[in-house]
Amino acid sequence: MSDRIRVSIVGASGYVGGELLRLLLAHPSVDIATATSERHAGTPVSVLHPNLRRISDLSFSAKACLEPCDALFLCLPHGQAVEDIDRYLALAPKVIDLSADFRLRDPEQYPAWYGRRHARPDLVARFVYGIPELHRQEMTSAAWISSAGCNATAVILALYPLYQQGLVDLSRTVVEAKVGSSEGGAAASDGSHHPERSGCVRSYKPTGHRHLAEMAQELPGAADAPPHFSATAIEMVRGILATCHVFLKENLPEKAIWQIYRRAYGHEPFVRIVKARDGVHRYPEPKLLSGTNFCDIGFERDDTSARLVVMAAIDNLMKGSAGQAVQAFNIMHGLPETTGLGFAGLHPI
Amino acid sequence: MSDRIRVSIVGASGYVGGELLRLLLAHPSVDIATATSERHAGTPVSVLHPNLRRISDLSFSAKACLEPCDALFLCLPHGQAVEDIDRYLALAPKVIDLSADFRLRDPEQYPAWYGRRHARPDLVARFVYGIPELHRQEMTSAAWISSAGCNATAVILALYPLYQQGLVDLSRTVVEAKVGSSEGGAAASDGSHHPERSGCVRSYKPTGHRHLAEMAQELPGAADAPPHFSATAIEMVRGILATCHVFLKENLPEKAIWQIYRRAYGHEPFVRIVKARDGVHRYPEPKLLSGTNFCDIGFERDDTSARLVVMAAIDNLMKGSAGQAVQAFNIMHGLPETTGLGFAGLHPI
Amino acid sequence: MSDRIRVSIVGASGYVGGELLRLLLAHPSVDIATATSERHAGTPVSVLHPNLRRISDLSFSAKACLEPCDALFLCLPHGQAVEDIDRYLALAPKVIDLSADFRLRDPEQYPAWYGRRHARPDLVARFVYGIPELHRQEMTSAAWISSAGCNATAVILALYPLYQQGLVDLSRTVVEAKVGSSEGGAAASDGSHHPERSGCVRSYKPTGHRHLAEMAQELPGAADAPPHFSATAIEMVRGILATCHVFLKENLPEKAIWQIYRRAYGHEPFVRIVKARDGVHRYPEPKLLSGTNFCDIGFERDDTSARLVVMAAIDNLMKGSAGQAVQAFNIMHGLPETTGLGFAGLHPI
Amino acid sequence: MSDRIRVSIVGASGYVGGELLRLLLAHPSVDIATATSERHAGTPVSVLHPNLRRISDLSFSAKACLEPCDALFLCLPHGQAVEDIDRYLALAPKVIDLSADFRLRDPEQYPAWYGRRHARPDLVARFVYGIPELHRQEMTSAAWISSAGCNATAVILALYPLYQQGLVDLSRTVVEAKVGSSEGGAAASDGSHHPERSGCVRSYKPTGHRHLAEMAQELPGAADAPPHFSATAIEMVRGILATCHVFLKENLPEKAIWQIYRRAYGHEPFVRIVKARDGVHRYPEPKLLSGTNFCDIGFERDDTSARLVVMAAIDNLMKGSAGQAVQAFNIMHGLPETTGLGFAGLHPI
Repeated sequence: MSDRIRVSIVGASGYVGGELLRLLLAHPSVDIATATSERHAGTPVSVLHPNLRRISDLSFSAKACLEPCDALFLCLPHGQAVEDIDRYLALAPKVIDLSADFRLRDPEQYPAWYGRRHARPDLVARFVYGIPELHRQEMTSAAWISSAGCNATAVILALYPLYQQGLVDLSRTVVEAKVGSSEGGAAASDGSHHPERSGCVRSYKPTGHRHLAEMAQELPGAADAPPHFSATAIEMVRGILATCHVFLKENLPEKAIWQIYRRAYGHEPFVRIVKARDGVHRYPEPKLLSGTNFCDIGFERDDTSARLVVMAAIDNLMKGSAGQAVQAFNIMHGLPETTGLGFAGLHPI
Repeated sequence: MSDRIRVSIVGASGYVGGELLRLLLAHPSVDIATATSERHAGTPVSVLHPNLRRISDLSFSAKACLEPCDALFLCLPHGQAVEDIDRYLALAPKVIDLSADFRLRDPEQYPAWYGRRHARPDLVARFVYGIPELHRQEMTSAAWISSAGCNATAVILALYPLYQQGLVDLSRTVVEAKVGSSEGGAAASDGSHHPERSGCVRSYKPTGHRHLAEMAQELPGAADAPPHFSATAIEMVRGILATCHVFLKENLPEKAIWQIYRRAYGHEPFVRIVKARDGVHRYPEPKLLSGTNFCDIGFERDDTSARLVVMAAIDNLMKGSAGQAVQAFNIMHGLPETTGLGFAGLHPI
Repeated sequence: MSDRIRVSIVGASGYVGGELLRLLLAHPSVDIATATSERHAGTPVSVLHPNLRRISDLSFSAKACLEPCDALFLCLPHGQAVEDIDRYLALAPKVIDLSADFRLRDPEQYPAWYGRRHARPDLVARFVYGIPELHRQEMTSAAWISSAGCNATAVILALYPLYQQGLVDLSRTVVEAKVGSSEGGAAASDGSHHPERSGCVRSYKPTGHRHLAEMAQELPGAADAPPHFSATAIEMVRGILATCHVFLKENLPEKAIWQIYRRAYGHEPFVRIVKARDGVHRYPEPKLLSGTNFCDIGFERDDTSARLVVMAAIDNLMKGSAGQAVQAFNIMHGLPETTGLGFAGLHPI
Repeated sequence: MSDRIRVSIVGASGYVGGELLRLLLAHPSVDIATATSERHAGTPVSVLHPNLRRISDLSFSAKACLEPCDALFLCLPHGQAVEDIDRYLALAPKVIDLSADFRLRDPEQYPAWYGRRHARPDLVARFVYGIPELHRQEMTSAAWISSAGCNATAVILALYPLYQQGLVDLSRTVVEAKVGSSEGGAAASDGSHHPERSGCVRSYKPTGHRHLAEMAQELPGAADAPPHFSATAIEMVRGILATCHVFLKENLPEKAIWQIYRRAYGHEPFVRIVKARDGVHRYPEPKLLSGTNFCDIGFERDDTSARLVVMAAIDNLMKGSAGQAVQAFNIMHGLPETTGLGFAGLHPI
């Protein structure tokens, strides 16, 4: 008999799968049973994830080899988890899906954002949306969790306290996310070719980003007035900085804003308020968060208008994906929430 | 007798001064008389501007050595041009100031934005604001020009056609500029130290940027409702991408927007509308503009709201500073506007 | 009647073809007749080379559309120029091939370096190897030129004066080139995917680089003792820095080395000796050469051994390819050698 | 009573001090007593090391506040540790100096490399040189350790197995290290100013690098024939790739080389042999090692000469400094050598 948790990862050859492998291999309560990749079955995981050399001698397996386990992480491309969902749910009592397949509680939303009807609308409402800071209580008893989108995570954490208290003119919020190249995944393309992508400032999704649907769902009051969101790709591999311009209904000084965020996040292990009077590091900086599960939040009041600028930084592969999934996993299993997520991040980097 | 124009550059050791030197050394109608630097007097300009090796054997001189010439460019730190302005105006019939000293027509604006009263309010109104696309006619007969701020140039060119026609809800415009490290000038600081600055996404001016005063002055109707502006420093040496979120009063399709920009800029030699249906380069990209005087403008209509996202890219040292100053110089002297500004830019870069 | 030269570019959609287009469009004596691309026939050149927007409204044509012209540039992948060489040579009295197809004078070398026998060994010896600093005289009367490899150009220019005078222990020379991503061409691959390629220091060709054959051919005495050459890919798009470690047969002080290089290159328009006692820019720096045709050469004597370290920097797409081809073109046509190659380069960049 | 080890860090405000703090704060057997900085006494360590926000509420103290402890790490600039060494040695039974003050066993070497006579030649021989792979046995009983230079570490680990077995023509070895900007420390300078340093390929130490003295000391036989070493600064914050060109006395195939390295390092927890037939990651890559204590070593045989190219990659702040110091600390204290050094590194990054 043992307290160890046997987990498998479906779709482990991509960047999110690799990050999960890294985290779970170092997790003190976890044993990895299987990591699947159809294309790379038989290949050592360290060939695709070279940071795992000497760390693990695991090889990828085909999905057909999956056996029952304690928890299953699904890291498949959007649309693939739902296809075989019955098999996955039968394999393990706890399932965390890192794709978008079960993020939206209203299945009617899928055609508009993902271009097809949802194949299993009956299941959608039973997945808990994967941001622990908003849904921790539900997670403690959840069987199934749908991990949140990376940009959605940054924006929702940045805005939630203000939206929850109704402090903001919802129709006016403008958010611009600066994002790195790993957000596009591990497959090469013309746009990811280094001579083109290096040093770019590319307006890759000025309007219509899919993560908007998650923001509309999770931000109180935003269902009919989601943020006006744009994403710009910059020279960066990991990381997101979401700069959120909100307009306050009433004049709140910075001190009051500070208190709102302190109340919301003062006890959160992975949310830090970063705001100093001066210095190079006075606001959130995504590069400092590489490899960590932190979401750093800062803000500045425009003293000539009603605008408040809120900045949130995360590592898109960690708090924006694999890290947050492990955080949820810990909650589901009654483990300390920070287990396996203690890396402080590097400076300089 | 000769048609050549003798010019001098005051404050030629910084990045803007170096860029002017590069442009004027290659300008077919110009001879450089003097390039001043108090600190580096006697040093070859190519020591500080290593791209000028073999191109020029000019050395820096002290300001005291300035002699009368045909045109004078002032590239001094803010506040220094105005101190000796009488001397400079006496040295040449044409003066182009690249600092902020004479950008704001209302001298009462200086204390709020630059921290001191203007020493020569009597002169302010006689400088023409240096964006040719807005003030070409005045430039043809101007004696003095005050070159525009780099962020201001990008934002004003992006928004002018919409503001001029009153199409936008002015109070709602949010602009976020992504900027490079050369904007901070040639002096090293803790914030520009490579291990800290490299790869950063730094909210260096979320509110209160000085260039706002120029936007308020030049954008029709914006005097009391300037854009809500933030600047974020990213991994880039040269370049600005200003992403402007405006809200249209009435529903205009992309085709109508296109026509508005075509009418405004179709004949402009240095403004290009960049908008393609697909492809890696479908929107403006500052890295492609390094060394050029172009301002590339693109846009995307949000079809779920009244928002229009307008992006403008420039090289901050060119269209944002030295290049635009040479463009104005050409207009002042009746030369073809593109003289000496024909560099196409590099791809890939 | 006209003195203008009509040129066509075969294979104009890649990075070298785009750079040639940029240079020739700005060349005062050239008209471009045709730029071919089989895959992109009918597409405006500015779609693939976005720096040419507004500069040119030329579109790509199929090779079948080529008509007789004054000069033809071939920018095809290795092995393709030779296939149709008779047709190309018939189209124009002057042909410059930028591929490797005619670089090696000894056709017996091709199987070892390029994996196949040369299809037209009869033609090989009639192409002039394209480094003007070594072959200017032959170029003045040449009909056909084979442009040199980029790494070969940097290394040959760095070492030629020393090798020519027999100053070096040939068997001991070690050269390490640091190269950028554009050297790999415009096609995306797993290795050029931004998250993998960004920030890399990749030993991509520690031994066996094809350009070795050119070095062995052009460096006096090196036929049987080519340099020990390695290439390392670093975070850079354009540029090469070749660091050459040579061992002097007799003890020469730096001053003597300086004189050797001055004698060799003092009158060369595109070779600069860059060596200062101190300062940030005391040695060659490829980023300063982006877009220029310069080869900057510096050196440092090791005062504890016989070693001399010689560094040569170029822009691989310019002096390493398209720029050098235009330089050769100018020589072939009796034009001033620097025509169309006057860009000074940018600082900062 | 407790088994915990109380350590203090002298000079904790720099990059090496910060990295030590990060490692020791996460080390399961360590309590940090004091972290000193004269200039920043009273300031929270997380102000200078922003990755430690929320991780530690420690503040810097003045050196005068140091109290007796179990182990002392000295992270002072070269020349300062030796000045107060008696005090430091009296404060703790175990001292690890991360400066160069006690690296060279022969005090006569100091004037040539560090510009002054050694103030305490009596102590020099009693410090163990800090590369565990070479001096593990001595470390188990050592009181004082002098941590190795970062470039020296990479080169020594790359070459040691070959030198030890006398396989190499010592006089011919040429090593070129590609290094990042953090190697220069936390103080800003003209050379570290981002617009100048970004994207550079700077020959900053073509000859005469101080770490040569360490290579000469530690590599068997190299005392009179140290490697010919150059260091080139490239676009990178953390990391070193040392490319070592050695010439084999007899013809050894790659398989034999592999066995030599396997025998030397097969049981080493922090040395990995990285060599694959193909793939993007077939050779050592420093960016994958950021934050880890690994030294990755690969090689390629030149089949046309006696040359063998050996590449070694490390994180200069980890295996090149703080990480290796903690590894030595663990050995000194009888702890498992990998304690606190388990971070796998990130991919992609």
